[in-house]
Amino acid sequence: MTDVQRIRGVLAPVVTPFDRDLNPDAGRFIAHCKWLVSQNCGLAIFGTNSEGNSLSVDEKLDLLDALLAAGIDPSRMMPGTGTCALTDTVRLTAKAVKAGCAGVLMLPPFYYKGVSDEGLYRSFAEVIDRVGDERLRIYLYHIPQVAIVGITPTLIERLLKAYPTAIAGMKDSSGDWSNTNAISEAFGGSGFDVFVGSESFLLRNMQNGGVGCISATANVNPAAIDRLYRDWRSADPALQQHELDKIRTIVGNQNMIGSLKAIMAHFTHHPAWANVRPPLDRLTDAQAADLIGELESAGFEMPGIAEFNAVPN
Amino acid sequence: MTDVQRIRGVLAPVVTPFDRDLNPDAGRFIAHCKWLVSQNCGLAIFGTNSEGNSLSVDEKLDLLDALLAAGIDPSRMMPGTGTCALTDTVRLTAKAVKAGCAGVLMLPPFYYKGVSDEGLYRSFAEVIDRVGDERLRIYLYHIPQVAIVGITPTLIERLLKAYPTAIAGMKDSSGDWSNTNAISEAFGGSGFDVFVGSESFLLRNMQNGGVGCISATANVNPAAIDRLYRDWRSADPALQQHELDKIRTIVGNQNMIGSLKAIMAHFTHHPAWANVRPPLDRLTDAQAADLIGELESAGFEMPGIAEFNAVPN
Repeated sequence: MTDVQRIRGVLAPVVTPFDRDLNPDAGRFIAHCKWLVSQNCGLAIFGTNSEGNSLSVDEKLDLLDALLAAGIDPSRMMPGTGTCALTDTVRLTAKAVKAGCAGVLMLPPFYYKGVSDEGLYRSFAEVIDRVGDERLRIYLYHIPQVAIVGITPTLIERLLKAYPTAIAGMKDSSGDWSNTNAISEAFGGSGFDVFVGSESFLLRNMQNGGVGCISATANVNPAAIDRLYRDWRSADPALQQHELDKIRTIVGNQNMIGSLKAIMAHFTHHPAWANVRPPLDRLTDAQAADLIGELESAGFEMPGIAEFNAVPN
Repeated sequence: MTDVQRIRGVLAPVVTPFDRDLNPDAGRFIAHCKWLVSQNCGLAIFGTNSEGNSLSVDEKLDLLDALLAAGIDPSRMMPGTGTCALTDTVRLTAKAVKAGCAGVLMLPPFYYKGVSDEGLYRSFAEVIDRVGDERLRIYLYHIPQVAIVGITPTLIERLLKAYPTAIAGMKDSSGDWSNTNAISEAFGGSGFDVFVGSESFLLRNMQNGGVGCISATANVNPAAIDRLYRDWRSADPALQQHELDKIRTIVGNQNMIGSLKAIMAHFTHHPAWANVRPPLDRLTDAQAADLIGELESAGFEMPGIAEFNAVPN
């Protein structure tokens, strides 16, 4: 049931740079993706931390085209393609499959609340049927604190039964380890790949048969997270986990997306990296200074990031 | 501050018909809009009950073009234009204004939860600034049980101060009369037009200085709701309110959108009207039969609907 080449390991929901008019900055996006790949980090573009839902479908398609044109390997990509509208989800997903992306990370349609598992089943089934491509690999995206609409074990079971090839796994961003654990126990043995949504759960996920993490912090701390992913069977993974958690706590202490972008702005020396689209807030200068100070005190660095980001303004 | 020609009265969040491939059926959409206008009902197309967020931006623009091409008066229209993505909201809003629509009903960006009023303020402000058209009239759309992200009095106050012409009013779909009342008291005197989201609150809203309602049930019971809107100062509006509530209770007893479409299918004799896009569920045949039976027992009818909907299959 499991493909040999399934994407695994550490992926970043790649933060999306905006210029001062809040248009996506494709050049800087490419640069950041290249740096992440150089750190052995996969590209979960258009996720929650990417402000993926703050972009139009056309903006996302253009950014994906820009990455492909820049020669970035689509087998390292897992674009977020789940939207509120069936037709948008189909369009994005079909494009990702055609481009050769390793998989897609798919939110359920999230506008209506309290919808039935039957309705969610038909949502995913329609997308799979309409895309109609054997290469499609869907990672179900469970992030109930944001989408409110979640992915239940009952839904997974039904989807896996109907679409054992297309349903490849999930990202559990609930932050609820008992949920991740229950899903791994129920489905992990049958080629259903479980990613956790934060590196704080990476060691436990690997010990549990999981396949990696897709984490906000991987945008800025990918090498250290990847090290634990590779070394989790080594002598002292708990120490590595502890070090990751320390950085995660600092980065996530204020608003996560604002903080990631403040870090990008600082280490790339490009202030425009701090821009976010509304309704999100960027950090204030004082908040950013505190954040950078704390990170530097903890010995944090982003080797090579400035070189990769030395693109014209 | 108040324009002479502000849209007021009863509007329906127009249900969107889909063909068997779940594509929007423009012919039947035009037919239903023409019937609603004939019943003196305004057209809040692309609202929650329209499955507006289940449509792509292009599908919405095409449907709006179809209504305009069919000669339907844009001064009777208040399209829903608020989406998760700034660029989509701007595109839809600019189109609506250019088309001469009376106003737009604008959800806040609803993907991220727990966002700041500052972030929401910038969301609306960016849209107003980018659309850059004096004719823009925004009705803020407060429906916290679905969007989760709501519109607070603090936000209204700040927006009204900065954009006294563009911010024309709100639709309060919270179902919380104390909220509607507080907003009417705070802002109702200054040309800020309050619509309630259900005709159950219509009489109280009119007594309170409000301007009407934008209600799901207006899709099927527009004339009776319009009668109360016109007659609320008459001898016995409470009896009218009671009759409206009776029908509303029957229609809203199961899932609202499935029920509205089952009613459309029955009274137009076009079974495809019952189609919904996932993740929503249509009524089962048994549920639909119960609903129609209850409505018929209550003397409910939709005069003229079959004739308006006699478009080719």
